[in-house]
Amino acid sequence: MPYMYSIWENIQEKFNHMIKETNHLNAYFPLFIPESFFLKESEHLKGFAPELFWVTKSGDRELGEKVAIRPTSETMVYHFMSKWIRSWRDLPMLLNQWCNVARAEIKATRPFLRSSEFLWQEGHTAHATKEEAEKEVIMALEFYKELAEKYLAIPVILGTKTESEKFAGAVYTTTIEAIMPDGKALQSGTSHYLGENFSRHFDVSYADKDGNNKNVHTTSWGISTRLLGALIMLNSDDKGLMLPPKIAPIQAVIVPIFYSEEDKANVSEVASKLSKLLNKKDITTKFDDREGRSPGYKFNYWELKGVPIRIEIGPRDLKENNVVIVRRDTGEKITVKQEEVLKICKTLLKKIQKNIFKKNKELMSSLIFTAKNYDEFKEKVAKGFVKVLWCGSPECEEKIKADTTATSRAIPFKESKKGNCIYCNKPSEITVYFARSY
Amino acid sequence: MPYMYSIWENIQEKFNHMIKETNHLNAYFPLFIPESFFLKESEHLKGFAPELFWVTKSGDRELGEKVAIRPTSETMVYHFMSKWIRSWRDLPMLLNQWCNVARAEIKATRPFLRSSEFLWQEGHTAHATKEEAEKEVIMALEFYKELAEKYLAIPVILGTKTESEKFAGAVYTTTIEAIMPDGKALQSGTSHYLGENFSRHFDVSYADKDGNNKNVHTTSWGISTRLLGALIMLNSDDKGLMLPPKIAPIQAVIVPIFYSEEDKANVSEVASKLSKLLNKKDITTKFDDREGRSPGYKFNYWELKGVPIRIEIGPRDLKENNVVIVRRDTGEKITVKQEEVLKICKTLLKKIQKNIFKKNKELMSSLIFTAKNYDEFKEKVAKGFVKVLWCGSPECEEKIKADTTATSRAIPFKESKKGNCIYCNKPSEITVYFARSY
Repeated sequence: MPYMYSIWENIQEKFNHMIKETNHLNAYFPLFIPESFFLKESEHLKGFAPELFWVTKSGDRELGEKVAIRPTSETMVYHFMSKWIRSWRDLPMLLNQWCNVARAEIKATRPFLRSSEFLWQEGHTAHATKEEAEKEVIMALEFYKELAEKYLAIPVILGTKTESEKFAGAVYTTTIEAIMPDGKALQSGTSHYLGENFSRHFDVSYADKDGNNKNVHTTSWGISTRLLGALIMLNSDDKGLMLPPKIAPIQAVIVPIFYSEEDKANVSEVASKLSKLLNKKDITTKFDDREGRSPGYKFNYWELKGVPIRIEIGPRDLKENNVVIVRRDTGEKITVKQEEVLKICKTLLKKIQKNIFKKNKELMSSLIFTAKNYDEFKEKVAKGFVKVLWCGSPECEEKIKADTTATSRAIPFKESKKGNCIYCNKPSEITVYFARSY
Repeated sequence: MPYMYSIWENIQEKFNHMIKETNHLNAYFPLFIPESFFLKESEHLKGFAPELFWVTKSGDRELGEKVAIRPTSETMVYHFMSKWIRSWRDLPMLLNQWCNVARAEIKATRPFLRSSEFLWQEGHTAHATKEEAEKEVIMALEFYKELAEKYLAIPVILGTKTESEKFAGAVYTTTIEAIMPDGKALQSGTSHYLGENFSRHFDVSYADKDGNNKNVHTTSWGISTRLLGALIMLNSDDKGLMLPPKIAPIQAVIVPIFYSEEDKANVSEVASKLSKLLNKKDITTKFDDREGRSPGYKFNYWELKGVPIRIEIGPRDLKENNVVIVRRDTGEKITVKQEEVLKICKTLLKKIQKNIFKKNKELMSSLIFTAKNYDEFKEKVAKGFVKVLWCGSPECEEKIKADTTATSRAIPFKESKKGNCIYCNKPSEITVYFARSY
């Protein structure tokens, strides 16, 4: 629906700004991927095969080669990069695509979290060296962290995925993981180092300065409309949504209150002027002058939509040159002079942004646990994230999953602590977060 | 590729501005349309059936109901509007979607003009009355005209489609038609009045102020990446593209010229400063400091890409405080003082925009003909548009098409002239343009 879509547009705007500043270019690649493309990288195919939607007919005719709806575009992008990249002068190639992708879901669908089709951004870059590509992987992940924390007010944990949880075809996968109020993890963005896995199979190579032919090192990274799901789950109360101001489609709403036609004219004039002023000063403001709806209806309506600030103007306020300002996050109500509204709104929006992030950060802390033994682990992992040591064997990981339904979420960067695996008790030095997930 | 895609992003930005100013909201609807949706409106189905791509499998499983890839979204939008619209308070509902659509093409594909998948914008609106909906149809068409002429420098003819050329399911279709250098028509945007055709079948109704249930009147309108095809065909010469400044991703390019490392440092410093200044003052400027490419290579490269202004800075210019400015459209070369560059570029960009539109307008005039009789018509329609009278019968239209491959392109608004049908000679008062088309 338009309201949630406009939050997605805001995310696009913020993220486009980040990637364009760092010389990435938006592009568009075909939706239909021929079956033969998937057959080139076997790990990738194995991972995605069960989720592919196949187009087999056009009109009444059977297609010669069936085509898949893209579940992700690595294969298609490398098909083109192999034509576009010739020499070191063409590198790095830094591309990004905003598009729809489709994955057949066996589990029940859930709005914004699991659906056959979703919208996302997928970055695809090619580099001359491993080092450069690995820097890119981390840069993209840092962009995601900034977007999640600074704009969406969603605190995240950064780290690397285990082998069994990495992207199909990647050398390794890095991730940002958010914690929902029920303690479950929501994977909110991933950034992959693909090494030469794809460039070898798709012949994406370049002549270096000495004329030697070399494979490029590639990366890919994505965030999706899942972020809207995280936003809703984290930023809601009994009255509805509670949007962080930096991402809210409407930051302030003005609701006029009147009981006579004369009051209506006077109140509307002031409200309309105020709305124009705030908009001009970069506070996205809506003057709700809808007919046939009571002020009470409008209060509820905009609280449900999570608009950070409500401004009420009635005939009595008018006489005293006042307006009433109500915060969505705390419910706090203050009466202020009309000429102070702009200044106060600016300050309040900053405060609300901070307050929502603080609240979410506290929630996060309260949902991260440690465990001294496997019994305690099982008890805690039913409630939230558990940070433990793990020996690194896929068997232990698999057994934990079978026991608890929890999966490994992330191996945090630069954590070094020695001890014993939470499952098998062997000496371990890999720290990892386990949690149930969406 | 990124460069053409960034022109599409510019088009999106301009068009979003127009529609948001007029209270339209962007939204997103599903890609997959169940077969049952198409069965509801028979004219619509008949028109689109041969072009539908069908998804029949996910993974190894056959789907219960096959789903089509959207060729356009009327059916899906009305499915949702029937849930969202309850009363007069919900009207008008003014939605727009930027997305990909797919249509199976039997004819050979052609980049930007005919391809299985393309990007477009589709507006979908619901109104209480016929009058309001018809106003909307014309408003959208006027937006398209403004976008084509003012930004893309593509002059267009406005009018209504004949019955046989209208959108499948519409009451009537309006269109903007551009003329390509070879005299062929390129349909560049259409806006449809759909009456109650869809609202009846999809039960999109509302309670009016008296509580009576009524069907809404709907419109839909679209422009696509076809516009990029028109832009390329109209705005090119032997050197490559020639982009109108208002839509060019890069409006000015600075190419440094140097033969020694010392010169390189000095030239680059001035070039980089100038680039920052121009960008700050809203002239999108690229400083081409690529290594390993000669100035000559760069000149050709940016001419091919159609950048309106090239700025050359060499060591001799530097000494005299000069730069050289070259216009892409005329090739004119002038030497100007560094402090004048901003002012001169601003003026030049306006002149170039005007000049390209003027050139295209003259081309258009030279390709519109009249005809005294059918023999002359046949001769002229091989060269361009022919404006004639037509009796209104589909038979005459069909016979003209069979004879000449030309189709009716548009019935201009408010043309009233009496005479005889160019084909059957019967008394006629409908003016219509015929042309071959892409």
